[in-house]
Amino acid sequence: MDDVRPGSVGTTASLCLRLGQTLFSAGSLLFMSVGVAFYSYTAFCFLVTVMGLLIPWSATLAMVDIYSIFSGSPLRLPGVLLIVVLGDMALAVLSLAAACSSAGVVDLLVHIDSSYCPPKYCGRYQLSAAMAFLSWVLTTVSSLINLWHLASW
Amino acid sequence: MDDVRPGSVGTTASLCLRLGQTLFSAGSLLFMSVGVAFYSYTAFCFLVTVMGLLIPWSATLAMVDIYSIFSGSPLRLPGVLLIVVLGDMALAVLSLAAACSSAGVVDLLVHIDSSYCPPKYCGRYQLSAAMAFLSWVLTTVSSLINLWHLASW
Repeated sequence: MDDVRPGSVGTTASLCLRLGQTLFSAGSLLFMSVGVAFYSYTAFCFLVTVMGLLIPWSATLAMVDIYSIFSGSPLRLPGVLLIVVLGDMALAVLSLAAACSSAGVVDLLVHIDSSYCPPKYCGRYQLSAAMAFLSWVLTTVSSLINLWHLASW
Repeated sequence: MDDVRPGSVGTTASLCLRLGQTLFSAGSLLFMSVGVAFYSYTAFCFLVTVMGLLIPWSATLAMVDIYSIFSGSPLRLPGVLLIVVLGDMALAVLSLAAACSSAGVVDLLVHIDSSYCPPKYCGRYQLSAAMAFLSWVLTTVSSLINLWHLASW
């Protein structure tokens, strides 16, 4: 542990970020998909798809972090870090796009007519979009920290 | 012109990117705002606001580029470049958010009921969202190129 890079892959801070991403994206997926007719709206289908990509990505990297913490050896391969940065960036753009389009659609459904969006369902759509937004924030933070460490390698 | 950095502030490539941004964001603003009741929808108001910020930003930086090209002295101040990078990043996130939320709302309006969105207006909304997306692409490219030059200063 001679050259620990705070927040980079294989550290406790990175593990916290990854667990937060997994938690928020799983919450967003569950609020959007369980018991709600999300497949009627393109934006909601896009959100479910993106969250379905983000959950395994974050969970896998969380496991890598746990392995690195317990084995006491942080990741030292620039190639792997580059893949992590590119994946994080792509998923950050996609999750921001999904969160914003869902938020726009929910806002329209609330104002256009209550028959399209009963209050019980609308609250779940809003919670789902908010959680997708939070997972975007955490993914962007992870991506920027790893990019910084990659640039200073 | 001893150490020209391609694509950085004060070069022809940067000028092309800035002119493209100004053109697409002005197109997006005009298609959205002239003769259309955009203020009924939150997402469209957000798009108009963001494009109203992006146009003066890109036009100002295009003028800086033109001045640098004609005076033959590219920008050599890391502080100014940092402000440009941060401004580009913030506007890139905002324009992606605006483009995606507008696209989500347009898609919903097309499918929900033609009374909400006559074909003549819907085409303009779609063009506006597409142009906002293109201006996001160009802003992101500018931001990444300048960040790269800033990191290698």
